[in-house]
Amino acid sequence: MTDSPDLAALSLEEKATLLSGQDFWSTPAVEAAGLPSVVLTDGPHGVRRQEGDFTGPGITRNVPATCFPPAVAVGNSWDPSVAERIGAAVGREARALGVHVVLGPGVNVKRSPLGGRNFEYYSEDPLLSGVLGAAHVRGQQSQGVGASVKHFAANDQETERMRISVEVDERTLREIHLPAFERVVTEAAPATVMCAYNKVNGVYASQHRWLLTEVLREQWGFDGVVVSDWGAVDDRAAALAAGLDLQMPGDCGAGNRRVVDAVRAGELEEASVDASAARVAALARYVTGPADGVDAEAHHALARELAAECAVLLRNERGALPLAPGTRLAVVGELARTPRCQGGGSSNVNATRVDSALDALRELAAGEVPFAPGVDLDGSGDAAALRAEAVALARDAEVAVVFVGLGEAEESEGFDRTTIDLPAAQVELVRAVAAAAPRTVVVLSHGGVVSLEGWHDDVDAVLDGALLGQAGGAALADLLMGVANPSGRLAETVPLRLEDSPSFLSFPGEQGRVVYGEGVMVGYRGLLTQRRPVRHPFGYGLSYTTFTTSELRVEVTGDDTATAALTVTNTGDRAGKHVVQVYVSTTAGPVRRPLRELRAFTKVALGPGESREVVLELGRRAFAYWDVVESGWVVAPGEYVVQVCADAETVLLEQPVTLAGDDLVRVLTMDSSVAEWFTHPAAGPALVAALAATMPADAASPEEQAGMLQMIGSMPMRRFAAHFGAALPRDLLDRLVAESAAAR
Amino acid sequence: MTDSPDLAALSLEEKATLLSGQDFWSTPAVEAAGLPSVVLTDGPHGVRRQEGDFTGPGITRNVPATCFPPAVAVGNSWDPSVAERIGAAVGREARALGVHVVLGPGVNVKRSPLGGRNFEYYSEDPLLSGVLGAAHVRGQQSQGVGASVKHFAANDQETERMRISVEVDERTLREIHLPAFERVVTEAAPATVMCAYNKVNGVYASQHRWLLTEVLREQWGFDGVVVSDWGAVDDRAAALAAGLDLQMPGDCGAGNRRVVDAVRAGELEEASVDASAARVAALARYVTGPADGVDAEAHHALARELAAECAVLLRNERGALPLAPGTRLAVVGELARTPRCQGGGSSNVNATRVDSALDALRELAAGEVPFAPGVDLDGSGDAAALRAEAVALARDAEVAVVFVGLGEAEESEGFDRTTIDLPAAQVELVRAVAAAAPRTVVVLSHGGVVSLEGWHDDVDAVLDGALLGQAGGAALADLLMGVANPSGRLAETVPLRLEDSPSFLSFPGEQGRVVYGEGVMVGYRGLLTQRRPVRHPFGYGLSYTTFTTSELRVEVTGDDTATAALTVTNTGDRAGKHVVQVYVSTTAGPVRRPLRELRAFTKVALGPGESREVVLELGRRAFAYWDVVESGWVVAPGEYVVQVCADAETVLLEQPVTLAGDDLVRVLTMDSSVAEWFTHPAAGPALVAALAATMPADAASPEEQAGMLQMIGSMPMRRFAAHFGAALPRDLLDRLVAESAAAR
Repeated sequence: MTDSPDLAALSLEEKATLLSGQDFWSTPAVEAAGLPSVVLTDGPHGVRRQEGDFTGPGITRNVPATCFPPAVAVGNSWDPSVAERIGAAVGREARALGVHVVLGPGVNVKRSPLGGRNFEYYSEDPLLSGVLGAAHVRGQQSQGVGASVKHFAANDQETERMRISVEVDERTLREIHLPAFERVVTEAAPATVMCAYNKVNGVYASQHRWLLTEVLREQWGFDGVVVSDWGAVDDRAAALAAGLDLQMPGDCGAGNRRVVDAVRAGELEEASVDASAARVAALARYVTGPADGVDAEAHHALARELAAECAVLLRNERGALPLAPGTRLAVVGELARTPRCQGGGSSNVNATRVDSALDALRELAAGEVPFAPGVDLDGSGDAAALRAEAVALARDAEVAVVFVGLGEAEESEGFDRTTIDLPAAQVELVRAVAAAAPRTVVVLSHGGVVSLEGWHDDVDAVLDGALLGQAGGAALADLLMGVANPSGRLAETVPLRLEDSPSFLSFPGEQGRVVYGEGVMVGYRGLLTQRRPVRHPFGYGLSYTTFTTSELRVEVTGDDTATAALTVTNTGDRAGKHVVQVYVSTTAGPVRRPLRELRAFTKVALGPGESREVVLELGRRAFAYWDVVESGWVVAPGEYVVQVCADAETVLLEQPVTLAGDDLVRVLTMDSSVAEWFTHPAAGPALVAALAATMPADAASPEEQAGMLQMIGSMPMRRFAAHFGAALPRDLLDRLVAESAAAR
Repeated sequence: MTDSPDLAALSLEEKATLLSGQDFWSTPAVEAAGLPSVVLTDGPHGVRRQEGDFTGPGITRNVPATCFPPAVAVGNSWDPSVAERIGAAVGREARALGVHVVLGPGVNVKRSPLGGRNFEYYSEDPLLSGVLGAAHVRGQQSQGVGASVKHFAANDQETERMRISVEVDERTLREIHLPAFERVVTEAAPATVMCAYNKVNGVYASQHRWLLTEVLREQWGFDGVVVSDWGAVDDRAAALAAGLDLQMPGDCGAGNRRVVDAVRAGELEEASVDASAARVAALARYVTGPADGVDAEAHHALARELAAECAVLLRNERGALPLAPGTRLAVVGELARTPRCQGGGSSNVNATRVDSALDALRELAAGEVPFAPGVDLDGSGDAAALRAEAVALARDAEVAVVFVGLGEAEESEGFDRTTIDLPAAQVELVRAVAAAAPRTVVVLSHGGVVSLEGWHDDVDAVLDGALLGQAGGAALADLLMGVANPSGRLAETVPLRLEDSPSFLSFPGEQGRVVYGEGVMVGYRGLLTQRRPVRHPFGYGLSYTTFTTSELRVEVTGDDTATAALTVTNTGDRAGKHVVQVYVSTTAGPVRRPLRELRAFTKVALGPGESREVVLELGRRAFAYWDVVESGWVVAPGEYVVQVCADAETVLLEQPVTLAGDDLVRVLTMDSSVAEWFTHPAAGPALVAALAATMPADAASPEEQAGMLQMIGSMPMRRFAAHFGAALPRDLLDRLVAESAAAR
C-alpha cells in the first residue's frame, strides 16, 4: 500500500481508535493524521444506508436505493458483465449517498439448498462464484467505492452461525470454499475482506491467523483491510494478532482498550497495531460525493435489463413461450401483483420503486389481462375460494400464467430453511390451474432453490426468476412476451428431493459443530459422483432460440495447461445468448475426484444463424487438486477429459488429453509403507534382491508371499523391518532412503 | 485382577520382556516368576494355529481345525446362542491345540459394503454386533481359552489400514463404532482387547490413551490385557504409556529395550511397566490341554447345524422353496462343487474337511442330480460354452439351483473391494438359466454384500448363504430340501447401488485420512434417513412358515426405561424361528437422530400354530444419545416411538411413549447465545424487562425487534452486550449467570 497516511505521529491509543468503528457504520476520523471518517454500509445488490446518524443498530429505515437483482439471480446469469454493471451502479449510488465501502459481494458456496442466506450467494460452484464476485468488485471499485468480499470463510449456514465450528478438511477448503475468495482477491483487489461469524475447525474466523494472514495475505497477496462481520470479534487482541484490522461495529472503545492493554502487557506487538491502523487509514482513498450516472429512472431501467439476463427458462413444451401477441391470458398468483424482489436481513434494500409483473404484462399485452391472486401469501385467506377463482379465470384463458414462490417471511438472513417445498397452497394452485387451463406457464420467485415436484410435468413452461430485484416484475413480463430472450442457466442444482443433497446428513450440524462430511462433493459434484437423478442439473437452461456447439479442439499448451476451441452456432431464428460450459473429468492422482468439474465458461451472444469460434483457456488450476501431503496444488500426470456440456449432466463434446503434470518423486522414509517401498522405481528391486538372497529354503511360495505383501502393504517400513524383516539390514534401508531423497 | 503372580522379584528388564511376544505367536516364559509362555493365535471362526514352532511369520501351513461359519454369517443368525456355541467349540479346539488365547471376535461396524474384512465382522449395527460378540466371548472363555475382541477401534477398511487416520467425531464413536466393544467388555470380560492398526483422529490406536485407558479401563472397567494387532505398535514406550500391555509379534527385544530406556530416562513410569507386566502374566490363567468334546466329526456336525441358522431366504415366489421331494433338479455353478467357506487372510482356517452343496444335495435328493459348473471361477474357461452347457441342463429340469458368488481371490483381509457387483459371467449365467429353466433358485456365497440387480426379479427364490464355513454346503442342501427352515435376517443392507451407501463419498479416504462424513448415519440409519430405496433392508429375511406379531404393550418403567411386550405366533404349518426386532424412533433432543435404530431383538422358536409372549427390556441406552456438551449419555425428555419391525423399513406395530428423560438445565454464561438467554425460563423475562425500560421512544417496532433477534440469536451474549446491548448492565447479566448456575 503506497498511499497510506503517516501515522507515526499518533500515540498508541490514537492508532488503536482506528481499529474499531466509532458507531454502527463508520470509522472514527483522526484529525491529527488528517483522516476522515469512512462509512461502510450493507449491500451488495443495492445500498442499504441507514437514515440519519449511525448510532442505532438500524436494520430498518434506510435511504431509498435501487434494488438490483440479488446474487442468486446474478449467479444464474453466468455473465460477469451483469455482475460488473450491478457493481458499478451500486458504486455510483453509494458514492452519492456518502458511502465509501459497500459490503459485498458474498461469494460463499451454497453447500446446502437450505442455507438461509443462499439468496445472497451466487452458486454451488466456486469458479462461477469467483468470476461473478470479481466482476462485481471491479464494477463497484471503478466508481471509487470500496467492496468487501464476504463472508470469509465457510459461512454457509445461519443455524448457530455466530458460534458454530465448521469442521472441514484443507482440500475441501482449498478446492471448494476458498477459491471464489481467492479469485476475487487476486483478480479484483477488493478494498476489504469481511471475516465470517463462524469458527473454522474450532477457531473463530475473526481470529483465524491461518485464514486471515497466511492464506489471505501471504499466499494470495491481499493488502486491503480485513473487517469483521458485524459483531464477529470475540477477543479483539487475538483477532488483531490473527490479522483482523477493523472491528465493526464499535463497542464504545472496549476493544481498543483491550488492544492497548495487550500491547502494554507485551502480549501483542505494536507493529500489529501500526499495520492494521495503516490499512484502515488507507480506506480514506475511497471517495464519496457526486457521481455520474445516478438517476433513479436510469438505474431502474438498468435493473430491468439486467434482471432479464438472470431468469432461467426451465421448461418450454409446445412452444408455450414466448406468449404470442394477442394470446388471451390469465394471470394467477399474488406474487404477480406483489412481487418478491429480494431476501430479508442485512442485504434488504429500500427500493426506489417496485414493478409488478402484472402491471408490466398489462402494459405489454394487447387487450385485457384478468388476474386472480390464487393464494394469500400469509395463508390468512380462504384457500379453496381463492383457488376456485383462479381456476375459473384459467379455464377461460388460452394461457394461464401462474406466479408462485416463497414469501418474504419464509427466507431471510438469520435462519436456515427446513424444506425446499413450495407452500402446499401454491402447489395446489398450480395443479388446479394446470388441470383447467389449455396451457399453463409457471413463473417462480424464491431465494433458495425450490422443489418442482408434484406439478412440473403437468405444466407447459417454467420460467425461474429466483429473486430479480425491484424491476424483476417488468423483466419477467419482457421474457414472457418475448421482448427479451431467456439466457440464464442454473447456478444451483434443482434436486428431486432435499434428501439427495450431498450435505443432507450433516447440515446444519449440532452442539456447536458442523462436519462438512461431503468434502469436495458439494452440489453437482456429489450428485453426479453418486449418480443421483435430479430435476434440473447445474448449468441447465433453455432459450427461445437453439444453439449447437461443434468442432471441439483441445490443445495441450504445456505440462499442465490447455486451450479448448469450439464453434457455437445459433441455429434458431431469434437472437439469443448461449453459455459455453467446459468441464474437466479425470481420475488421475491419489485423491477422489468429482465426476466432472466446471473449469471455464463464457456467455456468447449470437444473432439468428450466426456462428462464432470460442476459445477458452484451461490453466493449471483447471486440472489441479489440493495435495495435503505436498501442501500445494498438484497436477497429477495422466489423462484428463475436456468436456463441453449443455449442463453438468449433459456432455455435448469431449476430448481426452494427456498431461505431463507435476514430476513428484516421493521420498522414501521409514514411515513410507511397504507397498511404497516395493513399488519405488529404485528401492523396490533392491529390496526384492535382498529378501531373495536370505530367504530360507522352505519359505512361502511366491503366491503366498504376494498374499503376505497384500496383507501388510500399508505397514510403515519401520515396523515391517522390526517385526518381519530380519532380512532387511538397516544400513540397506538407510542407503535407499538417502538415494530416494537425492532423486527428488 | 486378583490372581496375578507376584512380579516384585523381577528386574525392570525381566518385567519388560513380558511386554512383547517372544516370537510370532507367544509370550516369553519367565521362569523366575513361574510364568509359562502363553500362546495366542488367530481366529475367530476356527483356530489358525501355525504348524511347528512360531519363528516364521506364518500366514499359511496351519494345523487342521474346524472352520465354523465366519462372523458375516453369524451376524445373519441374529442368534447369540449360535455365536456362543461357535465360541465354545473354538475354545475346545484351541485348548486341545495348546492355544491359550484365540484372537476374536471382530466387532467392527461395517461402515461400507466395500470393507475388505467385512466377512470377519457381524453387522452394520452396533447392538447386533455387540450381542453376538459378547456371546462368542462367553462361549470361548467357558472353555478356559481367552478371547480378544478386536479391532479396537474404527478399523473399518483395509486401504492404508496401518497408517490411515480415521477422522470421526465423538458422538459417532460413542453411538456407532464403540458400543459393540463396550458391550463385549462390560458383559463378557474378554481376556484381551486387540488394538487396531489405524489412527483415530491422528493418533495410532496402539498409543491412544483416551481409547485404551480412559474409555476402555476407566469408563468400561476392563481389567484384561490390551494386545496390539500384529505389528500395530509404532512407538513401544508411547504405546505402553497409553495403555497397551502386550506388543505382538516380538521384535527381537527392541521394544522392550525402548521401554527400559524410557523408564531409565524418566520418560515413562515404572508403574506402567508393572501394571502391564502383571496383566500379561495373568494371561497364564487361561489353560491348554485336553478338552471335552473335541471330536472332528461332532464339530463338523455342529458347524452344519449352526450354518443352517445363518442363511437368509431373500426371495421365495410361488413356494419355490423348499424343494419338493422328487423334484427334477439341475445344479449349476462351480460354487456348488467347490464351496466358498471363508475369507482370505489371518482368519483363514485349514478346515478339517469341506462339504460341497452338490454332494449333499445328491445325498438328500432322491434320484439323479445333474451338474454343470456354468462358469470358471478364475475366468479361464470358455464362458459361452460353460453357460450353454448349464442352460441345456436347466431347460430339462423342473428347478435349476444356481450357485453364484465371489471367488476366494476376490476378497481378503488386506484390500478393500471396489465394487459390489457379482462377476459379469455369473450374472450372465443366472440370467441365462432363469430364462431357460421352469423355476430358478439362486444360492449366494460371498463375504461382502453383493448386488442382486439385473436378475433378482427374474428368479423364483434367493437363498443367501454369505460364507458358512466348512459345512456350509451341507447346510445349504438342508435348507433347500426343507430339512432345515431358514431363519436368518440380513445383518447388512443389500443396496440397489453402491453409490447409495451413506459412506460412499468418503470411503476409503485419501492421503492418510478418511473422514467419517456420514457420522452416525451408517448403513440403514443413513439409508432410512435419506429415504433411499434398497433391494433388501437390514433385518429382512423370510421363512418357510409365517409369523404374526400382535398386542404390543409398551410400558414406561422409569424416567428413561421401558419394556415392550408382544405376542408372536407361528401361523404356518412348519416349525420355524422368528426374529423380533424392536426399534426406537425419536426427534427428541438437540442432535439429529436416525429415522429409527435397533434397540432390542430376540429370536423365537415356535412350532406350527404356537404362540408366545415376548418381553424385551429397553434400558436407558435404548433412548440415549451421546451429548458432547455434557460429555455423556443423555435421554432427552420427549416422545419416543417404540416400533416392532419386520425389518428396518417395515413397521409392524408401534406405540409412542413419553419419557421424562434427564433434567438438564443449561447454565447460562456470557458465551451462551442471545437466543439461549432470551428463552431461559428465569433470565429471559428479566432481560426483556431491562431492555423495555431503556428503549428509546423511536425504537424499532416489535416486529422489527423480532427480526433483529432472529438475525443475532446465535450471538454470544458477551458480544451482544458489547456491541448492541448498552441497555444490558453487566451487573444484571452477572446476577443472571449466578442464578442460572444455582438452579442447576
